[in-house]
Amino acid sequence: MPVLVMKFGGTSVATLDRIRRAAKRVGVEVSKGYDVIVIVSAMSGKTNELVGWVNETSPLYDAREYDAVVSSGENVTAGLMALTLQEMDIPARSWQGWQVPVKTTSAHSSARIEEIPSANITAKFAEGMKVAVVAGFQGVSPEGRITTLGRGGSDTTAVAFAAAFEAVRCDIYTDVDGVYTTDPRVSAKARKLDKIAFEEMLELASLGAKVLQTRSVELAMRYKVKLRVLSSFEEQSDEAGTLVCAEEEIMESNVVSGVAFSRDEAKMTLVSVADRPGIAAAIFTALSEGGVNVDMIVQNISEEGRTDMTWSCPVDQIKRAEKAMDDAKTAGTINFNEVIADMDVAKVSVVGIGMRSHTGVAAKMFQVLSNEGINIKVITTSEIKISVLIDRKYMELAVQALHDAFELDKVA
Amino acid sequence: MPVLVMKFGGTSVATLDRIRRAAKRVGVEVSKGYDVIVIVSAMSGKTNELVGWVNETSPLYDAREYDAVVSSGENVTAGLMALTLQEMDIPARSWQGWQVPVKTTSAHSSARIEEIPSANITAKFAEGMKVAVVAGFQGVSPEGRITTLGRGGSDTTAVAFAAAFEAVRCDIYTDVDGVYTTDPRVSAKARKLDKIAFEEMLELASLGAKVLQTRSVELAMRYKVKLRVLSSFEEQSDEAGTLVCAEEEIMESNVVSGVAFSRDEAKMTLVSVADRPGIAAAIFTALSEGGVNVDMIVQNISEEGRTDMTWSCPVDQIKRAEKAMDDAKTAGTINFNEVIADMDVAKVSVVGIGMRSHTGVAAKMFQVLSNEGINIKVITTSEIKISVLIDRKYMELAVQALHDAFELDKVA
Repeated sequence: MPVLVMKFGGTSVATLDRIRRAAKRVGVEVSKGYDVIVIVSAMSGKTNELVGWVNETSPLYDAREYDAVVSSGENVTAGLMALTLQEMDIPARSWQGWQVPVKTTSAHSSARIEEIPSANITAKFAEGMKVAVVAGFQGVSPEGRITTLGRGGSDTTAVAFAAAFEAVRCDIYTDVDGVYTTDPRVSAKARKLDKIAFEEMLELASLGAKVLQTRSVELAMRYKVKLRVLSSFEEQSDEAGTLVCAEEEIMESNVVSGVAFSRDEAKMTLVSVADRPGIAAAIFTALSEGGVNVDMIVQNISEEGRTDMTWSCPVDQIKRAEKAMDDAKTAGTINFNEVIADMDVAKVSVVGIGMRSHTGVAAKMFQVLSNEGINIKVITTSEIKISVLIDRKYMELAVQALHDAFELDKVA
Repeated sequence: MPVLVMKFGGTSVATLDRIRRAAKRVGVEVSKGYDVIVIVSAMSGKTNELVGWVNETSPLYDAREYDAVVSSGENVTAGLMALTLQEMDIPARSWQGWQVPVKTTSAHSSARIEEIPSANITAKFAEGMKVAVVAGFQGVSPEGRITTLGRGGSDTTAVAFAAAFEAVRCDIYTDVDGVYTTDPRVSAKARKLDKIAFEEMLELASLGAKVLQTRSVELAMRYKVKLRVLSSFEEQSDEAGTLVCAEEEIMESNVVSGVAFSRDEAKMTLVSVADRPGIAAAIFTALSEGGVNVDMIVQNISEEGRTDMTWSCPVDQIKRAEKAMDDAKTAGTINFNEVIADMDVAKVSVVGIGMRSHTGVAAKMFQVLSNEGINIKVITTSEIKISVLIDRKYMELAVQALHDAFELDKVA
């Protein structure tokens, strides 16, 4: 039998009624002849509750214990989904990460999947099971401890299963009906895209468009998994939602495909660092070893042997970053005056594979922001995107102005 | 290092503050030089929430999925407790059942522990870990699926660990400060016992005094585990609470030690069963295979080849019992007119090892109930207890009258 992977996010399984609705969608695919692997997230709000408890208990928590606690939400949904399918007379059973086993690295709370042996589940399909319900977001380390894949990790679980089982497609059911040119809550003119290239989706995902976890798009691109994003709250055809696919499969597209933003960034500045060869390496090694994911980096011009180093990182890693810098100062590896955190910032980005062959996108973006009186704090660019860090209060204004200026409400 | 087992029930870990309080108690024992194994229940109310979801999803649920869902509450507490201890600079880590592994039978939702290999945890103690926090109530079957031990199963987990690690004692921290002659909420004259014999505790536990799970007392008796019940909400000395111990260690005791009761019983009657040799075996085999735990049994006098069979079982197993009987009737193995369930009953029992050498306890019990105008529906007795099933509305009255009549408020 061909295998189909279906992933249901937290809002799609938020209540028993919604689990039933999701199960009905699964039933439709089973009736088409698929063996289905269902990946489930925790019921909406559950993971946040668990994360809140961990943070309150231990702000600089042991990530191994964080994972043990936070992974429990998915186990609950997996069992309930299996029971719901059984009630519909569909042979189903649940699997927790360690039971498959979903083998990951030991990088707790942001582990990477290394291998998904298919033998156990394939054997059950051969015995007549129609649906394997797998708890998303989690795996097991070589040491036998529970790992998690980072927020949104269930998307990655889904794509990894699609790759391991050579699934015909990986359908990501969520609370939106596809990928938009920007968040419709910020710009009323946002338009749903029928198709988007892996590379664009990758940038959008990493820039804060929370439709798919970045890692899941990377995996899908590498293993050529057909990835579809669609709503679990509407009747669906085979063409619904947005297909994330290779660039060659998209005939026409705008120069800019979308405007992304993120409120979860903070700007940190290390003031008056003693400049010397290797100082950047020292700073960012210390941050990396302290578990901080640095995004943008700016180094000011060095004067009289001292410089300022600025970077952005997720807001919830600020404590870790401060600790890493203080430790490095105490150890004598980095010399600086003070570290300043600015949490009132936002990142806004324009993304599009068309930027490879079109010039002037950056200039236009800066002009649009300037026209609105918005000051740019940090800039980074890649082949297909331009990102800026600005004051958070201007975020919505910037997104709307850019969406208008690049005419994203119109099809190319 | 000597090992001490400490178990904290749901109310003792209901909030992060209470987990901290429990962790402080653990810290006191660590400072005395013990290697401590902490067994935790789910936070108060969590297991009920999960059980409710399972029942709503699938009234005749697959017990394997029930276990996968319901076991998650303990995992959360175990991780949070480990983090709390780490914050107090006490080296600690959490263990889920499958990680130890706690090897059980495959009898899902009422599995029995078969083996607890001590190697993994002992190795960690040798490396300097001071506290192993273990999720109670759960284990893993030979098939690698998660099992649970039945409600109150964390007590059994605690005693089984105490036996496996030859612990000096197993302290059960709960929301009461010991074992009482009856529930103080029902009789204001209830008195705390300093010591109680394993056999008496066994009867009290099985009769609905919800201080300890029956199976935990059986295990403690078999492996001579010193078992102590005490409150997690009071400062505690080494002599606090109630010690459950061998009969020989108790110098004096009343003929009757306690009055127990249970509201969770239902009476079922199979009306006009075709009587034949082996019919009782047929009925109770069908109920057993249907997952029904029958407690009391009465067979009426047979007339003209037909009889009535009455039994009691937990209220929440009535649906299963009815299904088992209907199936047996359909299959032609049992012939009867109808099955009647009466849920407005309660079980009241008097318990005491002194009953072995004193006669007249039953007669006195029946007289006391008769004086209060309470009709007895079913009677069962053992060497050290007498139980009756009565209308539920008389339960409190019966308990108070029996407590007074046997003078349980006075020390022998």
